[in-house]
Formats: sequence, C-alpha cells, structure tokens
Amino acid sequence: MAECSRCGRSGEALYKLTNLPGLICKDCFITYYEKKVKNCVIKYEMLRGVKNIGVAVSGGKDSMALARVLSRLFPDIHLKLIHINLGIPSYSNECQKIVEKFADENSIDLIIYNIRELEGYSIDSFSKLPYVKRMCGVCGIVKRYLMNKIAYENRLDALATGHNLDDTVETLFKSYLKGDIEEIVRIRPLLPSTHPKLVKKIKPLIEMTERENLLYVTLTNTMHVDVKCPFFKDSRMMKRKKLISMLEEEIKNFKYIFFKSHLKKIQPVLSKVIVEPALRECKVCGMPTIKDVCSYCKITSKMVTVVER
Amino acid sequence: MAECSRCGRSGEALYKLTNLPGLICKDCFITYYEKKVKNCVIKYEMLRGVKNIGVAVSGGKDSMALARVLSRLFPDIHLKLIHINLGIPSYSNECQKIVEKFADENSIDLIIYNIRELEGYSIDSFSKLPYVKRMCGVCGIVKRYLMNKIAYENRLDALATGHNLDDTVETLFKSYLKGDIEEIVRIRPLLPSTHPKLVKKIKPLIEMTERENLLYVTLTNTMHVDVKCPFFKDSRMMKRKKLISMLEEEIKNFKYIFFKSHLKKIQPVLSKVIVEPALRECKVCGMPTIKDVCSYCKITSKMVTVVER
Repeated sequence: MAECSRCGRSGEALYKLTNLPGLICKDCFITYYEKKVKNCVIKYEMLRGVKNIGVAVSGGKDSMALARVLSRLFPDIHLKLIHINLGIPSYSNECQKIVEKFADENSIDLIIYNIRELEGYSIDSFSKLPYVKRMCGVCGIVKRYLMNKIAYENRLDALATGHNLDDTVETLFKSYLKGDIEEIVRIRPLLPSTHPKLVKKIKPLIEMTERENLLYVTLTNTMHVDVKCPFFKDSRMMKRKKLISMLEEEIKNFKYIFFKSHLKKIQPVLSKVIVEPALRECKVCGMPTIKDVCSYCKITSKMVTVVER
Repeated sequence: MAECSRCGRSGEALYKLTNLPGLICKDCFITYYEKKVKNCVIKYEMLRGVKNIGVAVSGGKDSMALARVLSRLFPDIHLKLIHINLGIPSYSNECQKIVEKFADENSIDLIIYNIRELEGYSIDSFSKLPYVKRMCGVCGIVKRYLMNKIAYENRLDALATGHNLDDTVETLFKSYLKGDIEEIVRIRPLLPSTHPKLVKKIKPLIEMTERENLLYVTLTNTMHVDVKCPFFKDSRMMKRKKLISMLEEEIKNFKYIFFKSHLKKIQPVLSKVIVEPALRECKVCGMPTIKDVCSYCKITSKMVTVVER
C-alpha cells in the first residue's frame, strides 16, 4: 500500500505534484505549503514594517488560498480582504457571495467595492467599446487602479495579490520573448511604494504553482469560485501556459529555475540600467501615474464619451 | 499544379520552410538564401575592414553552406578554408576528404591542421580521461583555440563560423534559463578582436535555420558530411533543440523573435553593466586568456600527464 513520502503513513489519500518527489498526504501537503509560503514571505521581507495588509480577493483559487494562508500564518497582522464587484452578470455576484461567506466564517474584515454602484459603470460596459478585444487588459487596469486606491484610502501598509508561479513564468516568457525590458525589471515578489499614494505590493504565492494553490484550497475546504469569467478568452496566454507546462514536463523544475535565474541573476543587472520612470499625480484623479493622465482615467473617460452619445 | 510562391512557375520541385509562406522552387530558394545571408553580413558590418577571411570548415552542412555562400557572395574577399583533422577514427578522414574536394573544385585555399601530427594527440585521447563525459565541450575548446591560432598566424582579418539560428537559440535558451549573464552578453553575430592575438569572429549564418542550410547545400550540390561524430551524444542539447522546434511550431517565428529580442533589446542593456574580463597572455602558450593559463593548455596538460603515466 502506498505511503506518504514525508510521514510514512499509509491508508490516507495521497497526492502527486510534479515539483515534489513521491506522493504526499493531506496533512503533510498543508504543512509543506504553509511552510513554503512563510519562507517566501520572510525571504523577500514582504512584511517588514507591515501591520495591516489588504488582500485582493477575486474569489478564485489563488486569491482564496492567499487569504487562507495569510490568516493562518500571520495571526498578528491585521488582514482586510478587498473584493471588487466587476458587475459582470452571472459571474460577479457569485464571486462576491463566496468572498463574503469566507470573510464571515473566518471573521476577517472585508471591503466590497461595487464598481456599478460606486463608479457608475461595469466591466461589461467596455465590451461595447473598442476595448472589446482586450477585455482582460482593461479589467487589469481597473483592478490595479482601484485596489491601490482602496488600500491607500484605508491606510493599509501593503496590498497582497495571489499571483502564482505559473502566472509569473508566463509573464516572464512573454516579456523575454518580446524583449520588454521595462516589464522584465518589474517582475519581482515585492514592488515597493515609490510614491505616497502608491501602496507597496507583495506576492506571497509567487513561488507556488497553480496546482499547489488549487490543492491547498481543496484540502483546507476553502471555498472558491470555479467558474471562469465569461470574457476570459486570452488564447495566447493560455497557449503560453500550455507550452510552459510542456517545458516543465521535459525540464525538471523549469518554472522555478527560470523564475529564480530571472530574479537572482538577470533582473538585478537590468535594474541597474533601467531607471523606473518617475511618478507624478494624474491631472484628473490625482493618483500616481507616469503620464499626464493615468490609464484608468484614460479608459474610463473614453467609455463615458461613448455611453453619453 | 502547385506553383512557386515567388516566381509563379509550376512544374518544378517545390520546398516548404516553416519560416517562409508558401512553397518555393530551387532557384528562388537559392536567391532568397543568398540575399538573406548578404543582408545579415552587411547589417552587422561583419566585413568592415576585412580583406581576407578564414572559414572554419568541419565538412558538415552548416560550415559547407558557409564556405559556398561566402565564395559566391564576396568574390573580392580572399577566403581561406581552415579544417582541423581531429583524429577521430572512421570520421575525421571522411570530413577532410569532403573539404579537400570542395576546396579543389572551387579553387579556394585550404589549410588542413592535423592535430595528431601537429599536436601529438587526437580528440580520441580525451575519451580515456576524466573528460570522457564532456567530449563535446573539450572538442569545442580545442577547435576554438586552434582556429583562432591558425587565423592569427595566417594574419587573417576575421574568422567565420557556421553557427546557425538553431544553435544560437539553443544557447540563448540554456543561458537565459541558467541566468548565465556573461554567456548571454557574448551571444551576438560579431565578436570583435579585443587583443592583438584574438582574431575577430563573425557568424554570417546566424539568422539562417539548420533546415535552410541543409536545403542550400542540397540544392547547390555542395558536398558535405552526413555522418555524426561518434562522440556526439549531448542529449540535453538535442532535447533543448527539440523543445525549441516545438515552440517554433506553436509560436510563429519563435526562434527569430527570441534572437532579435535578445540582440536588440536585452543584450545591449546587459552589456552596459557586464564588463568583459580583460585578456592577458597565457603563461604557457602566450595566446589570449582571462586566466593565468588558458583552457587549451589546461586540458592538454592534463592529457599529457595521463598519457605519460
């Protein structure tokens, strides 16, 4: 009978992860997962000087794993879950319900930001605009902007997001292939605050794979949304993720090795030359930007114009 | 009936290349190939100030394509083929015969350097040493050293090698994955002379694929060795080449895009920070090296020790 490669017990359900040797039981997996996240947070000094963290939660497996693991690992740090209701029919309300239930059951503070009510539009509105073909890009701008704004207005010391190793390596692969140096330099576990209105960003799950996050939420019975966003169809991103999985099958630990080589060897050298552009305040909203008007004000102003016609 | 996508003629044998749209006939392929190599040589200013070139010829498809195309494109430049007979039984003499026949038929100067006769050992000798597992690496050291020495002693302005796009991308992939910055910075079409005894290196075929070189030697009836070296078994390199071919199938022009992003965007930034180590003269042989004793003297001295025992 098969035994757990860590504790040696048999008679338990066992799980196989490509980046772990042998099979592992539920308890050992949870211990392994939490220890690995803790090491990552400590190694990159993500919580240095941090007393309260905003946790960006969509309701998906990665962000729910993040909320769960941070609440278990750092009971002394004050967590505030931040959920943006994007106003996407038959999707956004499902996501909100899950997040609310989790916050309630675990007695964690939760901010719900409903963009239809508070901003007067929804992500849907963009689907009628020239942005229809890059909905994920537009939604990313909206979420990044609002998450930072909410964290800033709530005086949070840091904003944690659920970016995993697969996301990171997909972005690395795309950026190196394009030679997008500015993007390459920004791929790291911690983005410090470089402007009074820009909250520090941390990625505690940056070394965890998608599969590990899924297994963690499953084995800890952490509720999460299983439905994909109806607008999600970035076939290029999915194609790159599939190619990366294929590389991982052929080259043991490909994702982790690529990430580590980037972070330890290439990024530090590039960052000596690439000067990050200075931030100023957006002429429209006053939030930090590298241009006169920030991307958020730019895309939402175009939408209003169309809606008003 | 199928037509050539360039000249429109039908009734000819047609060829398909993954990086070219449509099918192409023999004459159009040769024109395309030669034009592309010429553009590459001009673009990277490989022949600036060059009156005579050494062409490193092993007898394989890439180096024979190189000798053929350079002799056709630049009739005013004096070519000197350089062939090193590595003393590998049932292989090296075959290679030499092919090169001699080509030089003779095309009236091109040829230097044959027989290491068994001139250096007193053969590549074979290394197979009895601790180097047995990295024969290709050792052979690379021997060839790089001797090719440079021969080019220097013959007062050649440049040494051309048959490195193709597939070789280059394989090296890029390996180096980026390892984060080997010193190696990454060196991957470029032209390595200038940075020491009086170091001859400028040029790679005129760096944008041509293996398949294009093979088709070129085939369609121009250029003789070339078809046998693999008996020591060749770098399974990791072959595996990476297969993975890269697979990526090329999924991402159109992957090899060329990766190479160009490296060369135009990443390499120039890294090279601002990475200072290439200063060259001095080897204490044993006087040829340029970054250490006290050059790699060639180091590996050959070990061999002699073993042989003398």
